[in-house]
Amino acid sequence: MAVEISEGDLALLVFERRRKGPKKYLVRVERGKVFHTHLGPVDLGELIGRRWGCSVEVKKGIARVFRPTTADIMEKLGRKTQIIYPKDAAYMIIKSGVRPGDLVVEGGTGSGSLAYALSLSVGPTGKVVSYEVNPKFHEMAKENLRRLGVRNVELKLGDLRTDIAERDVDAMFLDMAAPWEVLPAAREVLKPGAPLAVFVPSCEQIKKFAVAARDGGFGHIEVVEVLVRGYEVNEQRTRPASRMIAHTGFVVTSRKLVD
Amino acid sequence: MAVEISEGDLALLVFERRRKGPKKYLVRVERGKVFHTHLGPVDLGELIGRRWGCSVEVKKGIARVFRPTTADIMEKLGRKTQIIYPKDAAYMIIKSGVRPGDLVVEGGTGSGSLAYALSLSVGPTGKVVSYEVNPKFHEMAKENLRRLGVRNVELKLGDLRTDIAERDVDAMFLDMAAPWEVLPAAREVLKPGAPLAVFVPSCEQIKKFAVAARDGGFGHIEVVEVLVRGYEVNEQRTRPASRMIAHTGFVVTSRKLVD
Amino acid sequence: MAVEISEGDLALLVFERRRKGPKKYLVRVERGKVFHTHLGPVDLGELIGRRWGCSVEVKKGIARVFRPTTADIMEKLGRKTQIIYPKDAAYMIIKSGVRPGDLVVEGGTGSGSLAYALSLSVGPTGKVVSYEVNPKFHEMAKENLRRLGVRNVELKLGDLRTDIAERDVDAMFLDMAAPWEVLPAAREVLKPGAPLAVFVPSCEQIKKFAVAARDGGFGHIEVVEVLVRGYEVNEQRTRPASRMIAHTGFVVTSRKLVD
Amino acid sequence: MAVEISEGDLALLVFERRRKGPKKYLVRVERGKVFHTHLGPVDLGELIGRRWGCSVEVKKGIARVFRPTTADIMEKLGRKTQIIYPKDAAYMIIKSGVRPGDLVVEGGTGSGSLAYALSLSVGPTGKVVSYEVNPKFHEMAKENLRRLGVRNVELKLGDLRTDIAERDVDAMFLDMAAPWEVLPAAREVLKPGAPLAVFVPSCEQIKKFAVAARDGGFGHIEVVEVLVRGYEVNEQRTRPASRMIAHTGFVVTSRKLVD
Repeated sequence: MAVEISEGDLALLVFERRRKGPKKYLVRVERGKVFHTHLGPVDLGELIGRRWGCSVEVKKGIARVFRPTTADIMEKLGRKTQIIYPKDAAYMIIKSGVRPGDLVVEGGTGSGSLAYALSLSVGPTGKVVSYEVNPKFHEMAKENLRRLGVRNVELKLGDLRTDIAERDVDAMFLDMAAPWEVLPAAREVLKPGAPLAVFVPSCEQIKKFAVAARDGGFGHIEVVEVLVRGYEVNEQRTRPASRMIAHTGFVVTSRKLVD
Repeated sequence: MAVEISEGDLALLVFERRRKGPKKYLVRVERGKVFHTHLGPVDLGELIGRRWGCSVEVKKGIARVFRPTTADIMEKLGRKTQIIYPKDAAYMIIKSGVRPGDLVVEGGTGSGSLAYALSLSVGPTGKVVSYEVNPKFHEMAKENLRRLGVRNVELKLGDLRTDIAERDVDAMFLDMAAPWEVLPAAREVLKPGAPLAVFVPSCEQIKKFAVAARDGGFGHIEVVEVLVRGYEVNEQRTRPASRMIAHTGFVVTSRKLVD
Repeated sequence: MAVEISEGDLALLVFERRRKGPKKYLVRVERGKVFHTHLGPVDLGELIGRRWGCSVEVKKGIARVFRPTTADIMEKLGRKTQIIYPKDAAYMIIKSGVRPGDLVVEGGTGSGSLAYALSLSVGPTGKVVSYEVNPKFHEMAKENLRRLGVRNVELKLGDLRTDIAERDVDAMFLDMAAPWEVLPAAREVLKPGAPLAVFVPSCEQIKKFAVAARDGGFGHIEVVEVLVRGYEVNEQRTRPASRMIAHTGFVVTSRKLVD
Repeated sequence: MAVEISEGDLALLVFERRRKGPKKYLVRVERGKVFHTHLGPVDLGELIGRRWGCSVEVKKGIARVFRPTTADIMEKLGRKTQIIYPKDAAYMIIKSGVRPGDLVVEGGTGSGSLAYALSLSVGPTGKVVSYEVNPKFHEMAKENLRRLGVRNVELKLGDLRTDIAERDVDAMFLDMAAPWEVLPAAREVLKPGAPLAVFVPSCEQIKKFAVAARDGGFGHIEVVEVLVRGYEVNEQRTRPASRMIAHTGFVVTSRKLVD
């Protein structure tokens, strides 16, 4: 990680706000480009050569400039359907034990936000292959990951149920409406004992998936939801924030069984 | 990841239980070794050559044998003080944007469980250096990581406030009683804009740390708690589990500011 | 409320404990009766004439003696199936707007714990009628309410779907496995616009009830769960308790519609 | 509770909305009065003589007309500082065991919303006395309770710490910034063993109050927060609502001790 901001870097502009939490923008640093925030324009070219963590003054306030983290990038990748939040992706990955060098298959590329998190977990010696049936999402994700400079993710336009070409897969992640339809394919291509992690928003889906997974050769099935609650902390007082995201979806983790 | 169980592998034995969630044991596979579970003994040598995900019969039940994931290992690393749970470690890592190749410093090695998670995130080209003042914890963590075959973590017996030798650190993680005392050292060795993530159990600590961090050259300070709620799902019904871990600790994330 | 403890009073013995929360016993004060706690026996007759809030020494500790509150009594009423917790009962009652003088019908008497809470809400000028099909529960609840000296609750052994005799009912509360089967009867006997509140433990039940209620002439349907999280507070630190009841059941509130 | 809507009644107009939950208005039914909703005007006089639960058509939608419940009224009583939500009030009342006929003292009248809930719990034979130091709140609450037709609440402009005139108080409720300052007065006027329930928004306040209460002759101190999470339920799916109120305040319950 470099000390100074360079042309072409992604940068996160953060404006602190009293009660509502920070306002954040993800921008690409470019000479001659002006970016408009809610408090005034920023000349992005002027950031070049400055150090990460520096402040930049706009008309009505001050922003800090940070190198975006995995979570920052995931939150900013637009998606038309529901997104996988960093809290959920992080939990799925640590529960599944993804490791540098792994081959991971994803179903439902969406914006590519989970694929991005997975690409960091498998590292340069590993590989992520992600399937998407919707050409629009496929193209959007392709563009997103290209801009992020991700090299170890292969995006495929196709149906995971029938088109999956990978074998000896170390882990599989599904973020799709009917993940139970992928179970036979998953069973075929996953290594023995390998993890299958699923993200679904409704109670009906967790039931349908959990029951089908158990009947379809998977075990050690666990269903959870991950909740993140923010706190307001200052000299005067410490208290939970008034509002929170109460639901994104449920996480189901499981393992392929063998006889 | 190999398909078959080999001598020397760590293995997770999982016994499913109706209502209480699974009972799990983390064992080292060894020829001639017998391990005693609540439902009877397992001859660990007999696992050699079998495939991950296989079942093994004991006197009063059946266990499944899985390759332990990051979360499985973290949960089983003993620790005398509070542990960092996988849910918290995963959130801290994704929010801080740890990447393959990074140099990460940890304060408060404890059992080495967070160091283990970090070692996977920085990968073989990265490095984790972890400080611990308590010789007992230092030795225990050393033994734990040695057994896990971790090669990219250096454990140091010493006081992070005064002894830190690393420079240009990409990210710092603190799990100690008085993390605010490390702020000057953190400020000195972290790269500009780099993340500092802290885990503390009480409201008093989040306040003291957040205020000191803000006054000590850190910004973009966010305080959260991560809650994981389990669900019981079967053909008959879907419902949240009756009990849950309601609190492990708070996570504070922040960034080093520069002028 | 009297100042002194009298023979025949219900009393709550409370032993404070460091980390696990208090240990509580609900006893009937009687001359010559000895009650055995985990820390030693208490001569209940010696409490007579002492003031509420006094302390009583047992062999290995000290208990405080309090007049039990509504919540204390509800928690101690035994029940073979799931109980309605005070948190859920209180929410159901305030959302339904039960008032002194109301006629309230309950379905699924169980131990009588919700009936007890309702009896206080309708007051001496109101009335609660509670139906139970299981003779065992019916008898147990009868005995429970008799001991509590409740006079404005009528317990009926019978099936709410077919046997309900009351008309112009101000509010109805259901705690039974198939509350949707009571909807036609509820529709018939409730006053126009009157509230119907239901407690069910599973996702399948809330769906089945909510859909049936909407189709069966009820509106303003709201489904919630009520969670209570405890805190450990002392001079040294403030923090959420480590464990909590994560689920008792869901509350569905609704109103009878008219054309 | 009457079957038909009469002139002078309070009525709740409820517009169902797909995802955001219902839009609700609390109105006073008056001949010749028109009320403007987000979907068009309602002639309130036309409601007279119709039955509760009926529907009323406005220009762009349909509203249902219900008799407001305790929770409906509490939510609509305006207040300049934080309000006590029905969920918190209901829990405080059931934990404190308020009964018909009780004398209850409240500190911090605010809008009168908790006093209103308490007035229903003590019933026509009981009494609530509520103190408020801010004349504006005192007047607002007076007007609010007058309109609600409440007869068993006495509002006093004064400082609970010094002005309290009641004795042999059955229960006390505090919703003020520094409830610990009222402890000596509470200790003096409460009956032996009587409950004192407090609502405060911050961690610092729960600590300061809990420690002072323990040192000031109160025991059985419990600190909790009450969370209500909504669900979206329809034929297609069942899932928690995306957003929720994550914090209103903490509830501290305690009892007066005697030697």
